[in-house]
Amino acid sequence: MRTDVRKKDVSIPATMKAWVLDDPEKLRLVEKPVPEPGPAEVLVRVDAVSICGTDVEIITKGLPAWIRGGLPFNKNFTPGHEYMGTVVKLGVGVDEYAVGDRVAVEIHAGCGRCERCRMGMYTSCLNYGLNYGEKNKGHRANGFTTDGGFAKYAVNHVNTLVHVPDDMSDEEATLIVTAGTAMYGLDVLGGLVAGEALAVFGPGPIGLMSVAVGKALGAQPVILTGTRDSRLNLGKKLGADHVINIRNEEPVAAVKRITGGRGVHYVMECSGAPSAFNEAMDVVNRGGRICLAAFPTEPALVDLAKLVRNNIYVYGIRGEGRSATHRAAALMAQKRFNAKLMHTHTFPLEELPTAFRYFRERIEDAIKVVVKVS
Amino acid sequence: MRTDVRKKDVSIPATMKAWVLDDPEKLRLVEKPVPEPGPAEVLVRVDAVSICGTDVEIITKGLPAWIRGGLPFNKNFTPGHEYMGTVVKLGVGVDEYAVGDRVAVEIHAGCGRCERCRMGMYTSCLNYGLNYGEKNKGHRANGFTTDGGFAKYAVNHVNTLVHVPDDMSDEEATLIVTAGTAMYGLDVLGGLVAGEALAVFGPGPIGLMSVAVGKALGAQPVILTGTRDSRLNLGKKLGADHVINIRNEEPVAAVKRITGGRGVHYVMECSGAPSAFNEAMDVVNRGGRICLAAFPTEPALVDLAKLVRNNIYVYGIRGEGRSATHRAAALMAQKRFNAKLMHTHTFPLEELPTAFRYFRERIEDAIKVVVKVS
Amino acid sequence: MRTDVRKKDVSIPATMKAWVLDDPEKLRLVEKPVPEPGPAEVLVRVDAVSICGTDVEIITKGLPAWIRGGLPFNKNFTPGHEYMGTVVKLGVGVDEYAVGDRVAVEIHAGCGRCERCRMGMYTSCLNYGLNYGEKNKGHRANGFTTDGGFAKYAVNHVNTLVHVPDDMSDEEATLIVTAGTAMYGLDVLGGLVAGEALAVFGPGPIGLMSVAVGKALGAQPVILTGTRDSRLNLGKKLGADHVINIRNEEPVAAVKRITGGRGVHYVMECSGAPSAFNEAMDVVNRGGRICLAAFPTEPALVDLAKLVRNNIYVYGIRGEGRSATHRAAALMAQKRFNAKLMHTHTFPLEELPTAFRYFRERIEDAIKVVVKVS
Amino acid sequence: MRTDVRKKDVSIPATMKAWVLDDPEKLRLVEKPVPEPGPAEVLVRVDAVSICGTDVEIITKGLPAWIRGGLPFNKNFTPGHEYMGTVVKLGVGVDEYAVGDRVAVEIHAGCGRCERCRMGMYTSCLNYGLNYGEKNKGHRANGFTTDGGFAKYAVNHVNTLVHVPDDMSDEEATLIVTAGTAMYGLDVLGGLVAGEALAVFGPGPIGLMSVAVGKALGAQPVILTGTRDSRLNLGKKLGADHVINIRNEEPVAAVKRITGGRGVHYVMECSGAPSAFNEAMDVVNRGGRICLAAFPTEPALVDLAKLVRNNIYVYGIRGEGRSATHRAAALMAQKRFNAKLMHTHTFPLEELPTAFRYFRERIEDAIKVVVKVS
Repeated sequence: MRTDVRKKDVSIPATMKAWVLDDPEKLRLVEKPVPEPGPAEVLVRVDAVSICGTDVEIITKGLPAWIRGGLPFNKNFTPGHEYMGTVVKLGVGVDEYAVGDRVAVEIHAGCGRCERCRMGMYTSCLNYGLNYGEKNKGHRANGFTTDGGFAKYAVNHVNTLVHVPDDMSDEEATLIVTAGTAMYGLDVLGGLVAGEALAVFGPGPIGLMSVAVGKALGAQPVILTGTRDSRLNLGKKLGADHVINIRNEEPVAAVKRITGGRGVHYVMECSGAPSAFNEAMDVVNRGGRICLAAFPTEPALVDLAKLVRNNIYVYGIRGEGRSATHRAAALMAQKRFNAKLMHTHTFPLEELPTAFRYFRERIEDAIKVVVKVS
Repeated sequence: MRTDVRKKDVSIPATMKAWVLDDPEKLRLVEKPVPEPGPAEVLVRVDAVSICGTDVEIITKGLPAWIRGGLPFNKNFTPGHEYMGTVVKLGVGVDEYAVGDRVAVEIHAGCGRCERCRMGMYTSCLNYGLNYGEKNKGHRANGFTTDGGFAKYAVNHVNTLVHVPDDMSDEEATLIVTAGTAMYGLDVLGGLVAGEALAVFGPGPIGLMSVAVGKALGAQPVILTGTRDSRLNLGKKLGADHVINIRNEEPVAAVKRITGGRGVHYVMECSGAPSAFNEAMDVVNRGGRICLAAFPTEPALVDLAKLVRNNIYVYGIRGEGRSATHRAAALMAQKRFNAKLMHTHTFPLEELPTAFRYFRERIEDAIKVVVKVS
Repeated sequence: MRTDVRKKDVSIPATMKAWVLDDPEKLRLVEKPVPEPGPAEVLVRVDAVSICGTDVEIITKGLPAWIRGGLPFNKNFTPGHEYMGTVVKLGVGVDEYAVGDRVAVEIHAGCGRCERCRMGMYTSCLNYGLNYGEKNKGHRANGFTTDGGFAKYAVNHVNTLVHVPDDMSDEEATLIVTAGTAMYGLDVLGGLVAGEALAVFGPGPIGLMSVAVGKALGAQPVILTGTRDSRLNLGKKLGADHVINIRNEEPVAAVKRITGGRGVHYVMECSGAPSAFNEAMDVVNRGGRICLAAFPTEPALVDLAKLVRNNIYVYGIRGEGRSATHRAAALMAQKRFNAKLMHTHTFPLEELPTAFRYFRERIEDAIKVVVKVS
Repeated sequence: MRTDVRKKDVSIPATMKAWVLDDPEKLRLVEKPVPEPGPAEVLVRVDAVSICGTDVEIITKGLPAWIRGGLPFNKNFTPGHEYMGTVVKLGVGVDEYAVGDRVAVEIHAGCGRCERCRMGMYTSCLNYGLNYGEKNKGHRANGFTTDGGFAKYAVNHVNTLVHVPDDMSDEEATLIVTAGTAMYGLDVLGGLVAGEALAVFGPGPIGLMSVAVGKALGAQPVILTGTRDSRLNLGKKLGADHVINIRNEEPVAAVKRITGGRGVHYVMECSGAPSAFNEAMDVVNRGGRICLAAFPTEPALVDLAKLVRNNIYVYGIRGEGRSATHRAAALMAQKRFNAKLMHTHTFPLEELPTAFRYFRERIEDAIKVVVKVS
């Protein structure tokens, strides 16, 4: 709990600073009304928000769901989904969180009424995007289909929240949702990874977190591939037993060398590279499993017969899911790995464009660039 | 679809006939306001409602959850949860069902926000009963914690509905939720029962439906135990390969005889008899599974070491769950078994007390006693 | 049981007629020693054997596993894996089957000692092919890595056998393993398909069996796609609710039309067509699942981002597995679908080359061509 | 690897010292032939063996399986199942292990051919005990149905072995199988325990290991109950967040207090106390799960209606399973918890009776008493 909020009355202003998305690449800092939390929702004072590769997609191109739904350009939309903050107001019926609680967010609150939500697969909600107008089914994707965290305040459904312990910094807490995505990937792969071989392709934030969470759960060996030694070295600090710079060594041969020819049980594909899926099929052993956690940048020529011949299962994931964020947050609260190593830069809210530039251009080896809001 | 509703405007009266529960055993027919459906809800014109053993519990004793929650005696509460009817009005945002659709109901709509609902286990909702007042979390259990179907109209969350095909009678449709409970029991046992041996203890409605659904999914042999030949004969018609009248033959020996000493893979315990669990442990083979679908009437002396020695798993279920009602309804729509055989008596709404008496006293071998409302 | 075997002593000759594979396309009928069953094995008198597409691959090209292992050309190898027959001799320690039992076979007996076999994934055995010489791990793949059924007798591990009921013809029993593959595909998709939409691509034997098994388990609707009306009509008889001739209608649009735009929950891809996987991703709904049960003939350009965006899971299967053959045999014994419809031609063992020609060239609309041996 | 074995030829004597079980309580040290490893087996030079509560059962009373099978009294039987050692000879076809490898053992090698083994449930083998004579199905339970580790040498099926790293002591390695049982218990409970509440009843070896493994996987909080402060304090060192001495505080109330009234998600029942199961049902939340890992000493009066009302699942386990020993060994190799804390005493092989006395009478707070053999 934060005494600045708990100890005194919280006065919530009527308006707030927020970035909104005009045309592609055009973010503008405006004064916007502070939103009101509805039933099962809370108002969060945003304390910090991290930039994700998907934010760049949103800001430069929009997303397919938007184009279908009419969002987001010139609609007064505020992006940003990797945020954390402090609960300052409760909607009707909320007692899961109290004013003053520090919280981090996951992205998706499902509609709760479609087939997938009823199965617990809320990130596969069939009513994705339907949270406006007459067809409001209650689905929310923070910073995707509802206003997000590049602002002083944001409304959240309680289903998107997780508690943040006192001794975790705001910056570290913004990384919980990334760890949640990695955890969900390992969940769909079966979750029981202790002593089994895991290859992680791509040392971006999700890849690095997959290394950290995989190692925390006991995977052995954890092998990380990438093109930049600085990232690979960071992977080592987060738990990778072996790193492969694919500029120097062909990754399939390298994984086979490390595993004595047996290959790995699991692949977390976090690179999005066109060749990655073929390589994943080649390094995974018979009966092994591949999780696709990155959006491939383009269609690739794939020899699917390998999936058939070797009884391989493939799991696409579009982010976190099945409350994996809670499990990831628990590991972080228990200090099972040092997520802070991934945080490289901090900027104030007003300097969001600079923060984006650092992230996109990887200035000074930027990995996780955090915008400090409060 | 029913032309009587679809073809013309539906005029909904302001008040309706409904039975309410005064003191234990005291049901009274009153005129009550017709309720309004909220968001994600519909108003159902009740066409028929079947009597369940739990209704008897409710009417005679109340339920533990009620005693905790202050319900239901003298609170104007209307019981009844095995009902079906016709959608006559849609709440905000509903397009899953249309006015005129015939629907049957399952009991539970979870809160959608607790740990269990987020996993898809909405019948294990941790906010059970919290659908009133300041702590309204949105949980509903039709006819348990909200007004049910012994009335002309009832409000339902869309999550509790399933479509009823045109060629299924009102009476048969009231049995869908019972089939859903049987299906959920088989689901938790693993669901892949084709060619595996299933023992069903107790030829009550859930037991008989377990026979029918188990056989529809290919279980072989299906063995039913009970004390009354009329019920056991009905079990044969619904798919039992063998029936055991435990007045004539000790059930453990009989199951061993039928299975060549190997025992069964699965037991559906639907009798509630004190000895049933010990017998279930004795007839299931090593690594086998037991589903408890009936409330044992009293604590029993149990040799739990058998669970440990034989690696047996036990699954308690409190009704349907995980959308099993939809799977059961599909099998019934495909006419995989003749649920109508279980329907023995019909009474009009005004004669509910007589209907109850037939059910409780098993007059004329009553099994499923249906109250026809519209 | 077959009285011809049970009633009298079974005299087993020292040698037998068997087809062996010399060079590609060169099958030769020879006289070979009758093999001896070892521990956990039985000798089966082959009564009938069906021709599978994979047999054609083996006979024309060999298989990759062979090329690695030195098999099969000019090694005195006898192919044939879809056979059934009568147990005529028991190896040491066998009491699961008796002399005279009618049996059908599944292909794989795993080594029982690798990681995958220990998990029950015996068709993903990591010691595939190692059943000879110093590295004999006990793996067997009937007709792939061990002598198969185009012969008078064949040795089988008990794990590859399933009982055949008296009232099932030899010809129908050869189709059990195909049904087992379909069942395994539905198992990996989750198994609980009642009331859920299933699209089957490709009306070859596995596709047709997927229709039949899917329908037997209650899938609704079952949609079959293909290019030939005769096959599609057969699919209807086996349980397809809708068939799509993709020469007349684009399959993605057709499935969307049939499902009211929602798409299907599951796809069984049994066509091997280059475009099939992309179409599967387009017809499956968010959170849906695809089973690849056919070997794609060539690498295809695939937009894997769809898997990520829609949280789709993909399961490659290389045949039957997890005892699915037993579940399929149970459904066939219970006459849940008429597999016999798929059997079109019969030839005696001596006319195997003619039988192959009918199968390969689809002469007279041949589907399942059976060679009657005894 | 151990240089004493690797560097020079291993000379294996023809006979060895071994303890055999005459009448109940009568162990005798004899000279016995060193056994020969068969196919898929190795000969292990036993280096150390730990005493388990089940050994006491075996030595004092025999086991039900024995009484059925004619074992073990006066049959020259050598008990002992928690052993580790060095591979000194390979059976035919073994390359999974090499001479000189240090290995620890798990108990069960299934027959590989019954329904349960085919599912991967080898500890539920339906051919348990059948490893002798005409009905030899190949099942082995080290030290239960085959000669065990209170001897200089023991034969093991490769399926019962796991590698021991160089930097793990012999004494610690004897504890791997106990950790494997705890891991299997957590596996059957679902395995994804990070951030979820776990209560462990009973601070015996399996209970203490359940604390350690549960905490290693991120459970939070981990609550341990027991009657002796010394054991509870050890539990704290192994990862318990809270300990409850049930002599001082009623356990149900205490767990509710610690969890803010919510109860726990999982219970590992490792005490065998008559009241434990009722308490487990009372502390687990709705939809929660209970693993029974201890043999209750006597039948207990159980209110099974709680399982039904609260949708609780119960899993009996008879030791390790599903290769959990490999996962546990991996966590121990990674030093995720300090199993050595449980090792309290060491005696030479000749002093086995003294070692047993220390274990049974808990002399000097004995927990794990290890017999050092080589």
